[in-house]
Amino acid sequence: MHRYIALPLALSLTAFAADKPSTTKPAQPAAETLDLATIARIREEGIGRSHVMEYAGALFDLSGPRLTFSPDYQKAADWSVDQFKHMGLVNAHTESFGETGMGWRQIGTSVLMTQPGTATMLAQAGPWSPATKGEITAEVIAVPTLHTPADLDKWKGKLAGKVVLYGDAPKTSPNPSAPLESYDAAKLQHLSEFPLDGDQGETDVLPTDPNFWGKRFTTFKEDLAKFFAAEHAVAALIPGGSNGALHDDTSTAGFGWFVFKPEHRQMIPGAVINTESFLRMSRLLEHKVPVSVRINIQTEFTGDKVDGLNVVADLPGTDPALQDQIVMAGGHLDSWVAGTGATDDGAGVVVAMEALRILKALDLKPRRTIRVALWGGEEQGIYGSRGYVVNHLASMKYPEGEKYKNLPAFVMLPSSVTPKADYANFDAYFNMDNGTGKFLGVYAEGNSEAASIFRQWMEPVKDLGFTAISERATGATDHVSFDQVGLPGFQFIQDPRDYDTRSHHTALDTYERLSEPDLRQAATIMAIFLWNASQRDAMMPRKTVNLSVPKPLAGLYPKVN
Amino acid sequence: MHRYIALPLALSLTAFAADKPSTTKPAQPAAETLDLATIARIREEGIGRSHVMEYAGALFDLSGPRLTFSPDYQKAADWSVDQFKHMGLVNAHTESFGETGMGWRQIGTSVLMTQPGTATMLAQAGPWSPATKGEITAEVIAVPTLHTPADLDKWKGKLAGKVVLYGDAPKTSPNPSAPLESYDAAKLQHLSEFPLDGDQGETDVLPTDPNFWGKRFTTFKEDLAKFFAAEHAVAALIPGGSNGALHDDTSTAGFGWFVFKPEHRQMIPGAVINTESFLRMSRLLEHKVPVSVRINIQTEFTGDKVDGLNVVADLPGTDPALQDQIVMAGGHLDSWVAGTGATDDGAGVVVAMEALRILKALDLKPRRTIRVALWGGEEQGIYGSRGYVVNHLASMKYPEGEKYKNLPAFVMLPSSVTPKADYANFDAYFNMDNGTGKFLGVYAEGNSEAASIFRQWMEPVKDLGFTAISERATGATDHVSFDQVGLPGFQFIQDPRDYDTRSHHTALDTYERLSEPDLRQAATIMAIFLWNASQRDAMMPRKTVNLSVPKPLAGLYPKVN
Repeated sequence: MHRYIALPLALSLTAFAADKPSTTKPAQPAAETLDLATIARIREEGIGRSHVMEYAGALFDLSGPRLTFSPDYQKAADWSVDQFKHMGLVNAHTESFGETGMGWRQIGTSVLMTQPGTATMLAQAGPWSPATKGEITAEVIAVPTLHTPADLDKWKGKLAGKVVLYGDAPKTSPNPSAPLESYDAAKLQHLSEFPLDGDQGETDVLPTDPNFWGKRFTTFKEDLAKFFAAEHAVAALIPGGSNGALHDDTSTAGFGWFVFKPEHRQMIPGAVINTESFLRMSRLLEHKVPVSVRINIQTEFTGDKVDGLNVVADLPGTDPALQDQIVMAGGHLDSWVAGTGATDDGAGVVVAMEALRILKALDLKPRRTIRVALWGGEEQGIYGSRGYVVNHLASMKYPEGEKYKNLPAFVMLPSSVTPKADYANFDAYFNMDNGTGKFLGVYAEGNSEAASIFRQWMEPVKDLGFTAISERATGATDHVSFDQVGLPGFQFIQDPRDYDTRSHHTALDTYERLSEPDLRQAATIMAIFLWNASQRDAMMPRKTVNLSVPKPLAGLYPKVN
Repeated sequence: MHRYIALPLALSLTAFAADKPSTTKPAQPAAETLDLATIARIREEGIGRSHVMEYAGALFDLSGPRLTFSPDYQKAADWSVDQFKHMGLVNAHTESFGETGMGWRQIGTSVLMTQPGTATMLAQAGPWSPATKGEITAEVIAVPTLHTPADLDKWKGKLAGKVVLYGDAPKTSPNPSAPLESYDAAKLQHLSEFPLDGDQGETDVLPTDPNFWGKRFTTFKEDLAKFFAAEHAVAALIPGGSNGALHDDTSTAGFGWFVFKPEHRQMIPGAVINTESFLRMSRLLEHKVPVSVRINIQTEFTGDKVDGLNVVADLPGTDPALQDQIVMAGGHLDSWVAGTGATDDGAGVVVAMEALRILKALDLKPRRTIRVALWGGEEQGIYGSRGYVVNHLASMKYPEGEKYKNLPAFVMLPSSVTPKADYANFDAYFNMDNGTGKFLGVYAEGNSEAASIFRQWMEPVKDLGFTAISERATGATDHVSFDQVGLPGFQFIQDPRDYDTRSHHTALDTYERLSEPDLRQAATIMAIFLWNASQRDAMMPRKTVNLSVPKPLAGLYPKVN
């Protein structure tokens, strides 16, 4: 659980020390030479002449949702390559992240009540759901959440030809909470304080205990779908949320985490429906009133082994001594399916795009190469960025054995990391993946020296609302792939706005959720951070890691014979 | 605009004075004799052993939406009659309110994007929309809001075979406001103060200026639908709102106010879609990207001249001298179509039902007859209650002439009122039609003597949060039908909660929006008010009306020869 002391044991200390002089003199906080004239120009271009909303509109409206491996994702990746070429970046291309999956998209989903009355429900196909056999009218049967193989027995022989209303009825409240959250000074102060109680999970660091995850990554949900199919049920309807915000990630809407792999293919068509419709049917069935629906889940599979792609492009460095070194910005291009992935993580994508556009528009010539990367497969387990790291920077091994057998890599710490040739030249990666909110500061991910540098970078952007430097570790998105192999990977403290309350993984994740002022600010600060990193004499410092695990002190108590 | 001085000129003063001694001694505030023991029993039954949520669940889940004249409305009316019989009321029946319209219901609506990508939109048929000719795939064309017949010309020859994306793009904000509102002490104090600036419109009193309404009730929207149909457009899609809260009243979703009449039948199939989908298509079309949809608006007409129905039932009075006098509670049973009309006005219906159940459960024997009425046609223009008044209590004439020609009765003041036999025996009507919020007080509708009585009735329910008596006039729902003919008709000050922000006339108006604690309180206070009115020696006082219109003073300035 304590990520800071659980860093990969096999990392060589020299790998972390690439930026440090090998003398005995302690490293001092670098005194940053800030290029204030250029920072002023970046601010002027980024705040005053922004194109971030144009990128957003075109990308989201043209591609729609961008599920990994889908034709829509491919369209978005091709469009992004075009944009990078258009703005004058070099080496703009897609590249495989080394994982394949089924191509899939939703054609359209319709769930209409036919008995005891008529109603049009809100419905979206679960990702990688198979299609129903055309439009089918069928009786509905309520099946509560099942937990063990033994729970299946009592439903044998009861599901044939039925639509399964699956899951315990969600609790609802007539007291809606305010959808808009904003971090105030007290909250930022709190985030700026290192969590002495060790609980970095507060900032979304995933636990790495295999016993914890083992209970979650079982094959039970997959077996459940097979059971429904074997019993000849027509489809499963799952409560997706209220207020039009249908949740549609596979945790909510799917039957198994790995449904994108042909060998884990979901055997029963499934859709999420609005909680209101789910509960109306639940209550009627509880009172023995027959309920029927006309259902049509139309989906399309476009290939079993579609290559997973990242998009990469460069603004080349111009200092012969430094141009092989890489400063990087990114976000993930993939999304779920019901909305258009505007805040998760379209915002991160268009901010990275706009940051590069700003630098190009000002015709800036960085010393180091500035690379932009748009990742695929983040939602399925941070595949894109990890694949990039493995392909270019370092190979990783993961723990083996029964406890780890069914776990996806993103919930494990590697057991060993072996740097590749480009490892030494990798400077830093800056990620954005927490919605549309502006940057209130940055997480230094336990890198105290980087924090000291960020405190200096903060000065010329404080008036944009960027006021907090936190040494906390954060998790669950693409900077982790770099951090995990000992490379500087950072993300920003973003104002939460309605990300957690409304848009995250829901049908409401659309263009309308974007805050233009916040995105202008974020793109401007992203461009400034890239510029600062690309221009400083040294690369960003890497973390000091103590590889020994604390042991209890000896000699405290009398020896017992 | 000033309702207080604009009361019907033809009302006889004696009609208003039914409750007053014909002596010269001024009427004094009645000292109320409150039956505190019974009030305590009503509180105990209403708060502690409520069945209001059971009524709500069964009514909304079984009938679904209850559009006036629809088969669903008929089902709800029959079910309500059954409930009143079941609880032991007498004379439970449906009766015509004297207006007919087309029976209609939505079978189901589906709007899927097919180009440039696939997407499942949220969509609901507009009320009384005709069906599309099955499922049709068609190109989308954006047509901004049109205002005059001349505006139609430039769209001639452009719409054939197309789906019209109709209307100006709605403005959206990424800053959602808090959906829950609650009146605080300051707001209640404000409502308790008579509006000396004359602006009672603040409490939803509709203006009665025919020039104001004449601009709204034109035939233009009807002509627009005819134009679209004549141009062979396939259907019209209208922006219905964000966040799953599709607005579906005819003001938003229809082509003409009177679409329920066969002679005003809507000529083009129409549906509301979520703002996010509307705007995505708008932006794409603005950038010349072709957009196509697969659309299926399935609706059914069930008759051209379906009788509009109210539901009426009695708890008979037991005092031979008073049992012909009627104390009445009600709400409107009809709703729009996308949700299940839980807060508009299912809440009023189940509170009236529960209030009667409480009185019956305690086996109370009121002196006067307590009548419950559930109205139809409220949403189309307060037809049900006005029809009841006209059939039983008083006939009304409305102003004639060009200015009034196209106006529905509910935006006019009657030009004359002629009491019928039952007028003298009508005591008071208590209405609830402002959502699920609890009763914070009552509007005395300019009846100062009633206000004085209500201040005394308030004492034993103050601790339930009932603390404000307002002499303001309110409008736009069924108590107006009584008030307009000089009979005491009241409604309560309700806590707004999320009625205006979320549930009013939207697809989110479902059971989940109901607040059980608030409905228990409302039903309890409704029962207490009915009991108080039924037991007092005199009927409720009627308003004093000054029929003369103020004229400028004479003699202020020197005469000019």
